[in-house]
Amino acid sequence: MGCHDIQDLRLENSFKLTRVGITGVRKPVEVRRNGRSVHLTAEIDVFVDLPPTQKGSHMSRNAEIIGEMIESRVREEVSSLEDLAADICRELLDRHEYATYAEVHMLADYFLERRTGGGRAMLEPYKLMARATSRRGDGLMKMVGVQVEGMTACPCAMETVRHILGERVPELGKVPELPMMSHNQRNRTTLMVEVPEHVPIEADDLIGIVEGSLSSPTYGILKRADEAEVVLSAHRNPKFVEDVVRDILRKLLEKYADLDDSVHVTVRSVSEESIHKHNAFAERVTTLGELRD
Amino acid sequence: MGCHDIQDLRLENSFKLTRVGITGVRKPVEVRRNGRSVHLTAEIDVFVDLPPTQKGSHMSRNAEIIGEMIESRVREEVSSLEDLAADICRELLDRHEYATYAEVHMLADYFLERRTGGGRAMLEPYKLMARATSRRGDGLMKMVGVQVEGMTACPCAMETVRHILGERVPELGKVPELPMMSHNQRNRTTLMVEVPEHVPIEADDLIGIVEGSLSSPTYGILKRADEAEVVLSAHRNPKFVEDVVRDILRKLLEKYADLDDSVHVTVRSVSEESIHKHNAFAERVTTLGELRD
Amino acid sequence: MGCHDIQDLRLENSFKLTRVGITGVRKPVEVRRNGRSVHLTAEIDVFVDLPPTQKGSHMSRNAEIIGEMIESRVREEVSSLEDLAADICRELLDRHEYATYAEVHMLADYFLERRTGGGRAMLEPYKLMARATSRRGDGLMKMVGVQVEGMTACPCAMETVRHILGERVPELGKVPELPMMSHNQRNRTTLMVEVPEHVPIEADDLIGIVEGSLSSPTYGILKRADEAEVVLSAHRNPKFVEDVVRDILRKLLEKYADLDDSVHVTVRSVSEESIHKHNAFAERVTTLGELRD
Amino acid sequence: MGCHDIQDLRLENSFKLTRVGITGVRKPVEVRRNGRSVHLTAEIDVFVDLPPTQKGSHMSRNAEIIGEMIESRVREEVSSLEDLAADICRELLDRHEYATYAEVHMLADYFLERRTGGGRAMLEPYKLMARATSRRGDGLMKMVGVQVEGMTACPCAMETVRHILGERVPELGKVPELPMMSHNQRNRTTLMVEVPEHVPIEADDLIGIVEGSLSSPTYGILKRADEAEVVLSAHRNPKFVEDVVRDILRKLLEKYADLDDSVHVTVRSVSEESIHKHNAFAERVTTLGELRD
Repeated sequence: MGCHDIQDLRLENSFKLTRVGITGVRKPVEVRRNGRSVHLTAEIDVFVDLPPTQKGSHMSRNAEIIGEMIESRVREEVSSLEDLAADICRELLDRHEYATYAEVHMLADYFLERRTGGGRAMLEPYKLMARATSRRGDGLMKMVGVQVEGMTACPCAMETVRHILGERVPELGKVPELPMMSHNQRNRTTLMVEVPEHVPIEADDLIGIVEGSLSSPTYGILKRADEAEVVLSAHRNPKFVEDVVRDILRKLLEKYADLDDSVHVTVRSVSEESIHKHNAFAERVTTLGELRD
Repeated sequence: MGCHDIQDLRLENSFKLTRVGITGVRKPVEVRRNGRSVHLTAEIDVFVDLPPTQKGSHMSRNAEIIGEMIESRVREEVSSLEDLAADICRELLDRHEYATYAEVHMLADYFLERRTGGGRAMLEPYKLMARATSRRGDGLMKMVGVQVEGMTACPCAMETVRHILGERVPELGKVPELPMMSHNQRNRTTLMVEVPEHVPIEADDLIGIVEGSLSSPTYGILKRADEAEVVLSAHRNPKFVEDVVRDILRKLLEKYADLDDSVHVTVRSVSEESIHKHNAFAERVTTLGELRD
Repeated sequence: MGCHDIQDLRLENSFKLTRVGITGVRKPVEVRRNGRSVHLTAEIDVFVDLPPTQKGSHMSRNAEIIGEMIESRVREEVSSLEDLAADICRELLDRHEYATYAEVHMLADYFLERRTGGGRAMLEPYKLMARATSRRGDGLMKMVGVQVEGMTACPCAMETVRHILGERVPELGKVPELPMMSHNQRNRTTLMVEVPEHVPIEADDLIGIVEGSLSSPTYGILKRADEAEVVLSAHRNPKFVEDVVRDILRKLLEKYADLDDSVHVTVRSVSEESIHKHNAFAERVTTLGELRD
Repeated sequence: MGCHDIQDLRLENSFKLTRVGITGVRKPVEVRRNGRSVHLTAEIDVFVDLPPTQKGSHMSRNAEIIGEMIESRVREEVSSLEDLAADICRELLDRHEYATYAEVHMLADYFLERRTGGGRAMLEPYKLMARATSRRGDGLMKMVGVQVEGMTACPCAMETVRHILGERVPELGKVPELPMMSHNQRNRTTLMVEVPEHVPIEADDLIGIVEGSLSSPTYGILKRADEAEVVLSAHRNPKFVEDVVRDILRKLLEKYADLDDSVHVTVRSVSEESIHKHNAFAERVTTLGELRD
């Protein structure tokens, strides 16, 4: 073919590139784990670096690798989105012989059964995330992540409301344990954790940690009594976004006491404030070692 | 030029098209109204219909019209986004001689000064919308619209909470007027009203009507006491999305008692429910005449 | 429970609402059709109307219906997204006894195997859409839709380029059939067709009709020769968005010659113009009967 | 007020947070520079860090600072979005006395007059970006950025098409300089450059560098001859995303030869491939010093 040299053209006095690849690839992925088969629609980005001497990255190899890893060979064996990301990442370095670095991102809708106090079971939506990066000759790092929506109620507004109402309604002084009105809102929290070799981390556990760190989980179906219990429960448990992030960090340390100090962790919580048109945001980017200090 | 006939090629046995045009055009627009000059960045879509006998619509005329109406001739005279939309709409029919219908949509960020109870003034963000449609020989219809973010607190959860707490805390029975906890959340409500010939409708009034129909407006800056008063005010004024839409309709009838029965109105309210991952939605598409019946 | 009357409160002098419901519900759906099982993640909106005499719509019934229809009873029997939408629509009217109208929208990622000229098979991404509406006592209308991405090359720029180059390069005059450079770009086209009772319409056929009406389909994996053939094929087949819509209409008439005149059809094509920062748009909203005239 | 201690509550055994703040604040900003006044609508995010001993960040201070810096004191003096970001960043450290780090992001629509070969002048849309970060006692870093849409034509497909057509149409062998068909598409490229103290960097220059590094700029209005010249020009100048990034880097080195080696630069180019449903991506994150090596 006439063009086989365009990407491979030798360049002089040019620049290396940090990441070159394809983004926004959509594929169906079937994950089999713990005896359960889950069908995901993943959105995938893949990158490798490019040396200063080469004109172009072989982009079509990226799509071929994704296709092969998902549609054929690996299909029967995918045990997690992050393992699939890692497999693709390794293959990127294999087939882009000029590359020294590879990176893979995956994002997918995900569902878990949840049950309200009233006993009703339903499927709640979450997001699964996976990430793998590898520097040639220097191993591979993979991360699993979740995005969870839930509810936060503000502890500060609650205290001011208690103070104001307490002055107006003396009877309230007799029930100091009474939860008070506050603003509450939809919150989106993401948690990503590095997955060490040979130590599986269950996305379902991460979702549980996040949901347990909000003022309350939220539910698709709430009949009247359930709804009131979610409201009461959230107000008994008011949380800043700062509190959400720190409670997740605390639970990670307990749950993953055996994991290495080097394990990377990112937690990010965003509350779509009901009293503002802007959002409240808190984040920690760290390692388990730093948290243990 | 070689290609001057492609769009004008005569077709046989083909189909008319309902709307053909360009979307996603971005332009700066300066509106001068009531002695105030406002700088907007508008996103614009324009369409005309196409008869079955003509191969293509002259798309470049659309961009020329937008450019001329905004950047040159009309620039000094734009008194509202909807008047600009109407001018563009008329010009579309003028220059697309084969068209029998034209349609224009505009959307822009907009700001108004607001003041909290505590007296702090600040600029709050809204969206302005405009729409014009015209059928050749049959006049022109223009609409002005606003999108407002604010807060709704749920009346149903509030009553259930009152009932549950009342059983647990007998003191509450003595203060029946006490507002109670509920879920509250960010709400986005849009209101569009047809603007009759010679009767200006102020977007600022529409924003006022929407903001006054929510459980509470929201603010960019809230110090502690202001925050609590917004929370208390919202809970004294709990609203379903249904209530928001109906209260807006009621206020429209009062405010625009002189407007014709034929005036079109659309109200749409969406609450990003804090207890669910999905939204609550209510809408009315109607005329003032229907509302007056 | 204390609150059982809030939604059911009787109102006087209030307004009916056109649509009240929930939006943005996400659920996994398994569709079994033609011996094939497909796993979809659907985004769902449902609405009913509300009479002027009733304060609130029972929103939690909407979520219950969706949950039941997808997660339990119907799960084994879903033969298409539009049949699921129709089932939910009927159930909405059943359980909202005060409603006279119900509406359901569904949207999901979808994949089909495609093969390039070079013989490579891969899964290409599409969107499936479904819609059902029902007026009590007046039957039910359901629609199936698809969204397809592909490529358009502009016939007008091609002719002007031919003219300019022809003057500069006389040799080109000897090969008049040679396709010429033009601008080409990503195009998104949606097609929705009403599905009559007892006449299944295959979404895969609709995708085929749309893909065959673009300048060229596009592919996730293209090795060098395939890539050039897609480019050549698109330039031999230049299309305005107007052409795309009309070719789809023509093919619909051929493919569905047996369908009733009353069947509704909507076609919408958007080209993300490579020479502009805005998009080109064409649309036809019609019935088969109108097209046949 | 009852709640003045909630954010200031002392914590033991808790965790510091990397960034806490507010996101999605929208404000109108007037920038006066080089005798020209520009009205922008900015979207703003601000963050500070939080020590492990403090429960909450004083979020309302963030909104107050943004309000004051934009609406009152600084309004008359804003000479660039990045200077405004820097002023806000300094103020964040001033008023969050517990913070050691502050970060500000701003994004706004922006317009420049452009003229086609045919002489038509029009306003083209771009995005302006600004970023400032500061570590207490360690100075402040500010960056200015631009996002530009334009067109890329693929050099690889062009060569393969030339090869295939050359075999089929021998006449083409006589005009080897003839540009050939390829796929071309909308490209979005962002360039961010650190702005050293006392050395202004003009966003308009950055836009010029990016636009000059694409296969062709794009225009809102193109009459027939202009349209063909843009197509021809792009095909005479085919570019991978890799080429776009490298050409920008090369021009930065020439234009900013006097800037320090330490100056940070990020270039990112995304082509919305017309032959694929996914995008092509290239990026370099670096310093001028690394580029000069």
